[in-house]
Amino acid sequence: MNVLVLNAGSSSLKFQVVATDPERIAEDRDERLAGGIVDRIGGEAIISFAARGAAPLHTTAPIRNHRAAVEAVLRWLVGSDSGAPLGSLAEVEAVGHRVVHGGERFTRSVLIDEEVLRGIQDTIELAPLHNPHNLKGIRAAMDVLGPAVPQAAVFDTAFHHTLPDYAYLYAIPYSIYRRHRVRRYGFHGTSYRYVAYRYRKLTGTPREATRLVALHLGNGCSACAIAAGDSVDTSMGFTPLEGLVMGTRSGDLDPAILDYVAAKEGLTLHEMETMLNKQSGLLGISGLTNDMRELLAEAQEHDDRRARLAVDIFAYRARKYIGAYLAAIGGADAVVFTGGIGENAAGVRARILDGLAWMGLELDPQANAEMVGGREGPITRDGARLAAWVIPTDEELLIARDTVRLVLGLDTRY
Amino acid sequence: MNVLVLNAGSSSLKFQVVATDPERIAEDRDERLAGGIVDRIGGEAIISFAARGAAPLHTTAPIRNHRAAVEAVLRWLVGSDSGAPLGSLAEVEAVGHRVVHGGERFTRSVLIDEEVLRGIQDTIELAPLHNPHNLKGIRAAMDVLGPAVPQAAVFDTAFHHTLPDYAYLYAIPYSIYRRHRVRRYGFHGTSYRYVAYRYRKLTGTPREATRLVALHLGNGCSACAIAAGDSVDTSMGFTPLEGLVMGTRSGDLDPAILDYVAAKEGLTLHEMETMLNKQSGLLGISGLTNDMRELLAEAQEHDDRRARLAVDIFAYRARKYIGAYLAAIGGADAVVFTGGIGENAAGVRARILDGLAWMGLELDPQANAEMVGGREGPITRDGARLAAWVIPTDEELLIARDTVRLVLGLDTRY
Repeated sequence: MNVLVLNAGSSSLKFQVVATDPERIAEDRDERLAGGIVDRIGGEAIISFAARGAAPLHTTAPIRNHRAAVEAVLRWLVGSDSGAPLGSLAEVEAVGHRVVHGGERFTRSVLIDEEVLRGIQDTIELAPLHNPHNLKGIRAAMDVLGPAVPQAAVFDTAFHHTLPDYAYLYAIPYSIYRRHRVRRYGFHGTSYRYVAYRYRKLTGTPREATRLVALHLGNGCSACAIAAGDSVDTSMGFTPLEGLVMGTRSGDLDPAILDYVAAKEGLTLHEMETMLNKQSGLLGISGLTNDMRELLAEAQEHDDRRARLAVDIFAYRARKYIGAYLAAIGGADAVVFTGGIGENAAGVRARILDGLAWMGLELDPQANAEMVGGREGPITRDGARLAAWVIPTDEELLIARDTVRLVLGLDTRY
Repeated sequence: MNVLVLNAGSSSLKFQVVATDPERIAEDRDERLAGGIVDRIGGEAIISFAARGAAPLHTTAPIRNHRAAVEAVLRWLVGSDSGAPLGSLAEVEAVGHRVVHGGERFTRSVLIDEEVLRGIQDTIELAPLHNPHNLKGIRAAMDVLGPAVPQAAVFDTAFHHTLPDYAYLYAIPYSIYRRHRVRRYGFHGTSYRYVAYRYRKLTGTPREATRLVALHLGNGCSACAIAAGDSVDTSMGFTPLEGLVMGTRSGDLDPAILDYVAAKEGLTLHEMETMLNKQSGLLGISGLTNDMRELLAEAQEHDDRRARLAVDIFAYRARKYIGAYLAAIGGADAVVFTGGIGENAAGVRARILDGLAWMGLELDPQANAEMVGGREGPITRDGARLAAWVIPTDEELLIARDTVRLVLGLDTRY
């Protein structure tokens, strides 16, 4: 079954076409037929498309809105430029949408109907930066493809619905949770579900015996404690601001800083939140860049103090989360790295794991250095009491599979 | 040498008189001659004084200000009601003051002169709720006792001056640190110094080999990672709001919650900070009380869900900090509990340590149950790879000793 996977942002639309054989889903034989992105929707858009066996397309074109972007993707998928990975639009058999926030309502992937649309609509105030755009992508695809093509929503928060109350509640007046649903939701859930699945597969571990601390280190960064295959704690909270240091987000900090700095700098609370989301993290510390590669280069080539400091803080905070989650779940079998930094920055991984030998995590420096560029495997010595792995994430694959299974009426918890 | 130890709050003055033999300081032979509190200064004050060998005094009297409180204490110390633990005021040979915030300037205890007074004054904006009152206590004692009696300041923050930059800096724009000194300071430092000292003493561990995770669980709660005898990380940050769940303070939370809840509830940023400091923590979750004893009773006697939840969250967060700090310092020799809850709530200690057996911490349930009411000792089985201890704190003793050593020109880092 061919699934069009869509990830709609404020002015972008990412897509992949995944062919999944529903009979052989456990064999990981899904095929990636095409993928790409339409960026800067609303003006002269930048388009990058690629399909198997065809030259990649890089072009610009005026794209008015998300509907026009979906139309452009579909036109290309059946056209001669792409080598027509799909013979006709009828071969788009289902659409799977990434949706950031499912609130407390959506605890798993669902087929989209009017009630689901209303549910996602209701969740907008929890994710004003993401859900409205995800909805635009859904409506555009429904308009263009019509009601005969089933569409599914896969939520970033859903994997974390198994958090126990003592992990998802903040120590604020309980009425604030009751009235406004202020709690830890967590994000990157689809990524964690994928790497947990993949780890089980690679190691032959049964779901119920899977105990991991996973770190998704990309543009956004978070950590997740996985016990008996389920998420039981995660570092992003009510929003993606909490937790680890990220490219431009502060992660954890003393909440009293907001009042103090707002007064000192003459900022509103809203401006403070913007500072913490857009001008902090690696960028804020270094005063240079939010790009880990550039920071590592600056630290190495020019011995730049603040670039080094940004990396130090990043790694130190990640290490503390590993320790916290190991304590939370009573030990784990492995620490798993994923996301752009997690998959490629071997030096950062080594820094994060530095000093964990006492709990049995013995890094294999060579394996670690080689496990980059999409490779997956262990980076600790054979027989280490606590292993570390690199597992490149693949959220699109999970979205495609969930979509197929929903269409077929199968359980999406696998 | 007799030292008057003073701890001045907004409307209270606590004191102790400690006789310390400077020749035999390593022998822990200090004697507590008297102690007490003047509360509700500014009106009809409530006075509780006690001295060795005399009936305790509980009375009320009009006490206009901190100076009048100091006078009342001194009058009683040399009077017949107390049995006159001091024969005359001349026997007050030095005064040691608790000062909450030393900023980046005061990295150890100091004798107070005009420059130190200006320094404490300069730090007021970092601790507007505490330092002004600490200063009132200092000025009152200087006025009453005159310039011939040396006075020392002992700072709650000073023990944490050894935090490395990657532990004390937040991932916010570096300019905010430069311009406004917004960083992690940490508090409860005198308490941590004391329990680390006492642990070394009880176990015969050299200072440089001392690796502990200490938890001060009282009205305020915090954790401290101690490596080579020094504080290298601590959970309270720029203010005492950050970190563990406390009686009425939230501890850690997603900073984005402030903007969201302020808008929903129509609160100012300042009112939000008040909510997080005064109406959150154990009180906020339970909707009942900030008193751990009452919560434990409610949870046990009435199976009260939210009382139990408050204790669950409290213990879970503390356990995560233990794990985080063990990872931060590459393992430790012991977890040390102190403070009112830490010294007395055996059940809470057991909950915090639950599930840490995999890292070698094997609780001895009987030892744990018995280690209450001021007793000190280990609560893990003999030979546990990671021990846990209860060590009642004694900040006044450390203040007295620092004061004596400063007067004698000795190093206060011991």
